[in-house]
Amino acid sequence: MYDIHVGRGVAASDELNSSQTGDWTMRTVTLPVPAANLAARFRTIRQHTLKLVEPLTPEDMMVQSTPEASPAKWHLAHTAWFFDSFILREFQPSYRPFDADFAWLFNSYYRSFAAFPEKRLRSSFSRPPLEAILRYRAHVDAAIEQLIEGGAPPEALTRIELGLNHEEQHQELLLTDILHAFYTNPLRPAYQSGAPEDGHAEAAPLTFLSFAGGIHETGHTGAGFCFDNELPRHRVWLEPFAIASRLVTCGEYAEFIADGGYRRPELWLSAGWDTVEREGWTAPLYWTHSECGWTFFTLCGEQLMARMAAAPVSHVSYYEADAYARWAGKRLATEFEWEVAAEGRPIEGNLLESGRLVPFPATALVRDQGPAQQFGDCWEWTASAYLGYPGFRALPGSLGEYNGKFMSGLMVLRGGSCVSPAAHIRASYRNFFAPETRWQLSGIRLAE
Amino acid sequence: MYDIHVGRGVAASDELNSSQTGDWTMRTVTLPVPAANLAARFRTIRQHTLKLVEPLTPEDMMVQSTPEASPAKWHLAHTAWFFDSFILREFQPSYRPFDADFAWLFNSYYRSFAAFPEKRLRSSFSRPPLEAILRYRAHVDAAIEQLIEGGAPPEALTRIELGLNHEEQHQELLLTDILHAFYTNPLRPAYQSGAPEDGHAEAAPLTFLSFAGGIHETGHTGAGFCFDNELPRHRVWLEPFAIASRLVTCGEYAEFIADGGYRRPELWLSAGWDTVEREGWTAPLYWTHSECGWTFFTLCGEQLMARMAAAPVSHVSYYEADAYARWAGKRLATEFEWEVAAEGRPIEGNLLESGRLVPFPATALVRDQGPAQQFGDCWEWTASAYLGYPGFRALPGSLGEYNGKFMSGLMVLRGGSCVSPAAHIRASYRNFFAPETRWQLSGIRLAE
Amino acid sequence: MYDIHVGRGVAASDELNSSQTGDWTMRTVTLPVPAANLAARFRTIRQHTLKLVEPLTPEDMMVQSTPEASPAKWHLAHTAWFFDSFILREFQPSYRPFDADFAWLFNSYYRSFAAFPEKRLRSSFSRPPLEAILRYRAHVDAAIEQLIEGGAPPEALTRIELGLNHEEQHQELLLTDILHAFYTNPLRPAYQSGAPEDGHAEAAPLTFLSFAGGIHETGHTGAGFCFDNELPRHRVWLEPFAIASRLVTCGEYAEFIADGGYRRPELWLSAGWDTVEREGWTAPLYWTHSECGWTFFTLCGEQLMARMAAAPVSHVSYYEADAYARWAGKRLATEFEWEVAAEGRPIEGNLLESGRLVPFPATALVRDQGPAQQFGDCWEWTASAYLGYPGFRALPGSLGEYNGKFMSGLMVLRGGSCVSPAAHIRASYRNFFAPETRWQLSGIRLAE
Amino acid sequence: MYDIHVGRGVAASDELNSSQTGDWTMRTVTLPVPAANLAARFRTIRQHTLKLVEPLTPEDMMVQSTPEASPAKWHLAHTAWFFDSFILREFQPSYRPFDADFAWLFNSYYRSFAAFPEKRLRSSFSRPPLEAILRYRAHVDAAIEQLIEGGAPPEALTRIELGLNHEEQHQELLLTDILHAFYTNPLRPAYQSGAPEDGHAEAAPLTFLSFAGGIHETGHTGAGFCFDNELPRHRVWLEPFAIASRLVTCGEYAEFIADGGYRRPELWLSAGWDTVEREGWTAPLYWTHSECGWTFFTLCGEQLMARMAAAPVSHVSYYEADAYARWAGKRLATEFEWEVAAEGRPIEGNLLESGRLVPFPATALVRDQGPAQQFGDCWEWTASAYLGYPGFRALPGSLGEYNGKFMSGLMVLRGGSCVSPAAHIRASYRNFFAPETRWQLSGIRLAE
Repeated sequence: MYDIHVGRGVAASDELNSSQTGDWTMRTVTLPVPAANLAARFRTIRQHTLKLVEPLTPEDMMVQSTPEASPAKWHLAHTAWFFDSFILREFQPSYRPFDADFAWLFNSYYRSFAAFPEKRLRSSFSRPPLEAILRYRAHVDAAIEQLIEGGAPPEALTRIELGLNHEEQHQELLLTDILHAFYTNPLRPAYQSGAPEDGHAEAAPLTFLSFAGGIHETGHTGAGFCFDNELPRHRVWLEPFAIASRLVTCGEYAEFIADGGYRRPELWLSAGWDTVEREGWTAPLYWTHSECGWTFFTLCGEQLMARMAAAPVSHVSYYEADAYARWAGKRLATEFEWEVAAEGRPIEGNLLESGRLVPFPATALVRDQGPAQQFGDCWEWTASAYLGYPGFRALPGSLGEYNGKFMSGLMVLRGGSCVSPAAHIRASYRNFFAPETRWQLSGIRLAE
Repeated sequence: MYDIHVGRGVAASDELNSSQTGDWTMRTVTLPVPAANLAARFRTIRQHTLKLVEPLTPEDMMVQSTPEASPAKWHLAHTAWFFDSFILREFQPSYRPFDADFAWLFNSYYRSFAAFPEKRLRSSFSRPPLEAILRYRAHVDAAIEQLIEGGAPPEALTRIELGLNHEEQHQELLLTDILHAFYTNPLRPAYQSGAPEDGHAEAAPLTFLSFAGGIHETGHTGAGFCFDNELPRHRVWLEPFAIASRLVTCGEYAEFIADGGYRRPELWLSAGWDTVEREGWTAPLYWTHSECGWTFFTLCGEQLMARMAAAPVSHVSYYEADAYARWAGKRLATEFEWEVAAEGRPIEGNLLESGRLVPFPATALVRDQGPAQQFGDCWEWTASAYLGYPGFRALPGSLGEYNGKFMSGLMVLRGGSCVSPAAHIRASYRNFFAPETRWQLSGIRLAE
Repeated sequence: MYDIHVGRGVAASDELNSSQTGDWTMRTVTLPVPAANLAARFRTIRQHTLKLVEPLTPEDMMVQSTPEASPAKWHLAHTAWFFDSFILREFQPSYRPFDADFAWLFNSYYRSFAAFPEKRLRSSFSRPPLEAILRYRAHVDAAIEQLIEGGAPPEALTRIELGLNHEEQHQELLLTDILHAFYTNPLRPAYQSGAPEDGHAEAAPLTFLSFAGGIHETGHTGAGFCFDNELPRHRVWLEPFAIASRLVTCGEYAEFIADGGYRRPELWLSAGWDTVEREGWTAPLYWTHSECGWTFFTLCGEQLMARMAAAPVSHVSYYEADAYARWAGKRLATEFEWEVAAEGRPIEGNLLESGRLVPFPATALVRDQGPAQQFGDCWEWTASAYLGYPGFRALPGSLGEYNGKFMSGLMVLRGGSCVSPAAHIRASYRNFFAPETRWQLSGIRLAE
Repeated sequence: MYDIHVGRGVAASDELNSSQTGDWTMRTVTLPVPAANLAARFRTIRQHTLKLVEPLTPEDMMVQSTPEASPAKWHLAHTAWFFDSFILREFQPSYRPFDADFAWLFNSYYRSFAAFPEKRLRSSFSRPPLEAILRYRAHVDAAIEQLIEGGAPPEALTRIELGLNHEEQHQELLLTDILHAFYTNPLRPAYQSGAPEDGHAEAAPLTFLSFAGGIHETGHTGAGFCFDNELPRHRVWLEPFAIASRLVTCGEYAEFIADGGYRRPELWLSAGWDTVEREGWTAPLYWTHSECGWTFFTLCGEQLMARMAAAPVSHVSYYEADAYARWAGKRLATEFEWEVAAEGRPIEGNLLESGRLVPFPATALVRDQGPAQQFGDCWEWTASAYLGYPGFRALPGSLGEYNGKFMSGLMVLRGGSCVSPAAHIRASYRNFFAPETRWQLSGIRLAE
C-alpha cells in the first residue's frame, strides 16, 4: 500500500476487505479489467521497480534518512506484501505464504489487517536480507501471474490494478527517498551518472493563459482507474482565471532569494514564517550556496545553477510556493482551475519514462497547446486545501478510513513529477502533502 | 487589535497605516459613519469592557494560564493601545501619549508599528499596575470623544469603528481566557455567581432542514462594517443540502463518549487521532468525570451534566466535531452552506447581551424559522478550510499582512457564541482557529 | 518546606511524620530548644518574611516567571502551611485549620502528606487572594505562639526550629524569584530603590591562601541545628591546597568574555558547551550588553558594570564557574577544602541582614583572617558532586525521601549569599543545584 | 578514538597533537614499549575486530538504532582512522592516505583535527561500501606494521599502544551497539547462535566481605598503560566497608520488580523517578514479560529467565542500581571501595575472550578469594560521580580536552564486562556513563 508519514494521499485501494461491495468497484474502476493486458502490465510495472534499484547496493537500500522516508528495501518488500495480503491470501486458495512474519513486518499502517512495527524501526531491518526480499517478490509474482492465468474473479483483477497503482506510487517514493538518503550522506553520491541535459538556455517567457469563468465540472470521468478522492465528479463555479504558461524556474526563484525572500515576513503566511524561523530555511531543500554560486542536489548529483537556471524549481514547500507567488504579485491556482486547464490534454511531459529524473527546462513553448509542463517535471502546489468533494462517500470497510482520514491540514498538488510513472497520472489526480513538505519534487505554477 | 497565538481571524483593521487608500475604505465600511451614533457606541462598548472585569480582582487579571490566552489586564491595555496608536497619534495633533513605553509594551504583533514583547511575557506585567491601566483607558477615552466631537475626518471615524470591532473581539477573548484561568486554578472559582437557568428539559428533536442546490452568493453585502476576509461577495455552486435544526447537545455528545468515541481511531481524522493520543483527550475541554457523572466547568462554575444535558456541547476541537459527525453518520456543513442557511435571518440568540455566559438548551424550536441557535450559544465548526475568497485582495499596507497570513491550516467557524456581542456577529462573519483549538466556545452542528 | 523544581537541597525536616524516632532528633538538633528563645526567634523570622514583601504589590506576588520559581504569594502561604501541617495538626489538639483546602493547595511535593497541584499551576492562584493568605499566616502564628507558651513537647519545638529554617530558605527563594520576575517584566522594575553603594573601587588583589593537607574532619559538629546531609561528621584526606582570597569580580569575568570565553569549546565541560550552544549563553544571567557597555540587573535595578566592576560576579552556572577557572589556569575548590578553610570563622559578611541585596566588592582584605567573602555575597560553586557523606543514613519515614533523593546530578555550593539570613548559614551548610542553574546568587571562588 | 554520545570515558589518547610533551608520555605509559610485542599485539587486536563482524552482513553493519550507538561499519572505519590520522600521517613520511575524504568522514569529534559529520548521519553512510572500508583497514595495517618494523620513534609506539586501547574500547561498543540493533529489529536475530551455558543452577549465597578503613591509595600504579583519569595515584580515607560476594542476579532483580520496585517513588532518586515516569520503565532494557514469564534479549538471542535466573542482571541504569540497593537495604560501593577490594587480584573472569558474550552465573564461590565477578560479566555502577582525582592534570594540547570535559553529571563504573577484552581491564580502570544509560552491560554489586 501507499505509505507515508503525513500527508501523501492514500489510494482508494488501502485496506481492502471482504465487506467491500461491488458498488465501490463500479465507482472507481471500469470493469472488466482485461486480464491479458493486466498480466502484461503487471510484469512491466513489477520489473520496473527492480530496475529502479539497480544502481543501489544492499547497503544503500538500508538508509532511512528522515522519518518521512523508508528504506528502498522496505519499499520492495511492502509492495509485494500488498499483493500477498490483499489478493493472494484472499483469492488464491492454494497460495502458500513466503514467510509468516512478513504479514505484519511489512504492513505499513493497516490496523484492521495486522499489527505493524513503528515506521522509524524500518532502518533496523537488516534482516531479512535483500536477497530474501527479492525471492519474496518472485514468489508473489509467480502466484499473481498464475492467478491471472487461472481466471481470476473480477474483484481480484480490480485489486491487482489497485496493487499496481500502489506500486507506482512507491516507485516515486523510492526515488524521492533515495534522493534524500544520498543528500544526507556527506559524500553526496549520485543515483544516476551522467549530467542531465543542458539547461542553461533561456526559459521561454512566462505568459498567462486565460480561461473563462462559469460552471465547470471537475473530478474523474470516463473509463479507467481512479482513487476515490477524485470522485464524485461535480460542478464548481469559477471566476475567469489565467494560469502561467510554464513553471517557475530555478533562476527566477534565485531572484526571490536575492531579493530577501527568506528575510521578509510580510511575504509569508504566518505558519510559513514560523517554519522559516524554526527550521532556518534560506533556500529550497537540496540547494547549497558556495563560491560557485547556487548548486542543487538531484538524482544525477550536484548541479550548477549556472547550467540549470531555466529548469523548474523543485523541493519547495507550500509556504515557499505561496511566498514566491506573493512576491511575484501573483497567486497559486486552485486545484479546480488547474484541472480545468489540464482536462482533455494528453499526459505528456517529463515523467518517469523520460529517464531524466530531474525537472527539465521549458525553453520553447508551443503556442495554442495550453500551459507547458502541466504533467511531469514537478508536482504543483495549489491553493486548495485537501478536502472531500461534495458528496464524497467513504468507501466501505477499512478502506474508507484511509482516504478521508488525511482530509485535514494538507494542501493539494497536481500534475505529477519527473519521477511519476506516466500511466499513473491524470488531470483529476490529487496528490496531497503537509504544507511544510519539501522532500517531494514539488514546484510552483503561478496564476492570476 | 485582535490578538491571538494561532488561529483566530484578525480584523481587517489590523495594522493600519497611512499608505492605506480610500479604495479599501469603500470596500469594507459604508460611509459616512454617523459621528453622533459612533460617539454613543464608543462610550457603550468601552464601558462594557470595564463591566466585564468587575467580577475580577487585580490578581485575577494577572493570570495567563495558557500561551494562547492573555491576562485580562493586558486585554484592557491593548484595546486602549489600539485607539492610542492608530487613531490618536495620527489624527489628533494635540494628543499627548499617556506613557511612552506603552506604544511597544502593549503592541501585540504589529511589526511595522513597533517592537513588542514576546506573548508569554504578558504574565509578568505586574507593573504597570491595574490602576495605571484604568487611567490609561480613561485618558484615551477622553481624547477619542474629543476627536469625535471636534469633527474627525472620515478615515478617523472608520478606524474608530474598526477599533470598536477590535474591542468586541477582545471582550470575547477576555471571557474565554478568564474561563481558562479559573479552570486552571485548582479551586475553580466562578466568574459569575448563580446557577445558569435549568437545562434539564429535553432538547427539541434533531431534524434536518433542506436547502436547494444551485448557484448561491456568499460574502458580505449591504451596508455596515465587515472584515476583508468576508469579501468579495461571490458565487458558489452548492449541491442540495440539509442542515440540523439545532446544535448537538452535551447529552448527545456523552453518548458518543460512552460508545468509545475517544478510543476508536476509525472515527477520526489522522491528525485528530494523533492529537487524541498525544494529549490524552477523553472528553471536551472542561469536562470532568466523577462519582456525580459528568460535570463541566463554565463561567458560572461547575455544572452537572444531569442538569444541563440539553445544552449545546462546547469546547470541542474541529477534530472532535468531525469525529462526532462521522459517528452520527452525518457531516459538518461547509461555511457556504451555513451562510446560505443564515443569510437574511435576524441576529438573535444567546449572545453576550443575554448575560447567561453559558450555552443554552434548545428545548422548543419554532417551526418555519430555519435552524435554531445559528447565532450565539457556540461557534460552529464548518468543514471549510480558512482560505481567501476568489478575488480576495490583500489590503494595502501592513493591514494586508494580517488577514491573508492566517490562511493556512485553520478551519472556519460561524455564528458567534454566548460571549460574542450581538452587534459583532453577522451571517457572513468568518471566525477561524486551528483544528485542535478548544478554549473557545466551539460546538457542533450536523449537516447531510 | 523548602520547595524547588530541581536541585536545591531539601531540609532534613521535609515530610515529617509520626514514625520518626527520637534517634533522628538527637542527630540533628541539640535539645532542648529553649522555648523562650524560640518564641522570639519565631516572631522575628515570621515578621521578616512579611517585611520582604512590603515593596511588592498583590499583582507582583502573582508572577511565576520560570518553572523553577514560585510566586511570592505562594511562598507566603507555603511557609505557613508547614507549621499548619507538620506542627499544629499534630501537636495542638485544639487547633482549627484556617481552610481545609489549604492542606493540599499549598503542599509543595510531600506525597505522603496530601495530593498537591502541579508546580506550574501556582501562577493561576489568583484566588485565594493575598489578603486571605495574610490572615492565614496570622492564624498560624497565633496558634504556634500559643503552643509554645502552653509548653510544647520537645518534638514540637524541634519541628518549629525546622519550620523556621524552612522559612529562611524561602526568604532567599522569594527574593531570587522576584528578581527573576522583575527581570522578565520588560519594564525591569527595581525591588529596592536607591543605588547600591559604589563599587567602582579597585578590588583587592587576588591571592591564594594555603592550607595543609592531611586528615581533616568535615560535617556539622557541636550544638545547634543542621540538616541531615551535613552528617555524619567524618574524616577526609586532603592534599595541600590553596584557596583564593576573594571571589571573582564582574570585571574579571568580563575579561573572560572579552577573551572569547563563550566561543571556545576547549574551556568547557562537554555538557557545559552543549548548554552554551543550546541556550545561546554569552554572559551570566541578567547581564546585558548595550552602548553603555555591560549592565546587570539586580534587586536594586540595572547596574552599570563601570560602577560595579569590583563586585563579585553572580548568576553563573557551575559550567561557567568551571570554564572561568580553566581559563584562569585555576580550578574550583572541593566542598571539603572550602569547609576546612571556613570552619571556625565567624559568620560575618554581606548577608541578608546587611540590606544591600547585591554582592559587595572586596576592595580591601584584612590579612590573617582567611579568605574574604566566604559567607554571604554569593554562593560558591564547588567541584564536588552532591552525594551522601560516608555513613549517611536516611531519616526514618517520608523525611528520609527528601534528602537522599536529590543526591544525583547536582553540585554543591557553599557559603550563603547576600540574600541568605545570617542565622541560616554555617561552615558545614551544603546547598546544591543542577550545574546549569543560574537564577540563584551563585559565584566563583578559585582554588589551586 | 573512542566515540560516544554522552558519558563513556574517553581515552587519554583522544586528540593527540604535536604540542604534546614527553611529560605526558611518562605519566601514562611505561616506556619503552617493546616493538616486537607491540607488532604481535597490533595484529592480534586488529584481527579480532574483524572476527567480531564475521556474523554480520553488510546490511547489519548499516544499522544505528539509537543516537548513542554507531553502525558496525563505522566502528571498523573509525578505528582505522585513528592510526591513519594520529600515527601514520605524523610519523610515516612515505604514507599515502587511502582516501582524502576519510580524514573528516570518520572523525568522531576531534575538533582540532578536522571537521566531522553529525553523529546521527552515520546511518546514511551506505557509501563508501563495506568492501572499501575493509581495504582501508588493510592499507592502514600494512603501513603500521611497516612503521614498527622500520623502527618507529617511542612516541609513535606509545600512540600505537593508545590506538590499540582505543580499538579495544570500540570492540566492546561494536557488540553493545549490535545488540541494540538486533533488539530493535522486530525479528530479534541472534548475533551468536547456540544457547549460552545453562544458568538455572542456584546462585551462590550473597555474603559481604569486609575491608578495613583507614588511608588507602587508589589510582593506577606500576608499569603498563593507563588513561590519565586513573592518575595520579592518591590517598583516600575510607571508613570500614563490606562488599558483596557476587553481583545481583536476574532472579533477585525480578523480586524487586515483583515487589513494585518500579511503582514506588520512595525507592528512587528524584531524577531516577522522573526517568521511570518519562520513559515508562518497568524492567531493565531488553527484558520482556510474556506468558513464558520474563525473557531477556542477549547477543545469543532471547533467553528465558527460568533458565538464567542466577545470571547477573545487566542493562540497568544507575538509577535502577541505586533503587535496587535501597530496596535491599544496602547501598552501592564507592569507586574507591571497589578498587581497594579489587587491587592486586588477577584479571580473571567472564571477559570477551570467554566467547560467552552474556553474563555468567556465579553458582559456587571460592572462599578466600575476594568478591567474585569483579572483572567481567557486567560493569558495576558505583556511588561515585566521575570527577578528576586530586591533582588531576589535563594533558597538554587537545588531548586534555577529552578527559576532563566529561567530568560532569556522569557516574563511574568499574570492572569490565563479558564483552570487554581482558587486556583492556584493570583494577584502576574507570568507565563512566550518564546515570540513565542502559545499553551497556551494566549491573549491580551491593555494599554496606
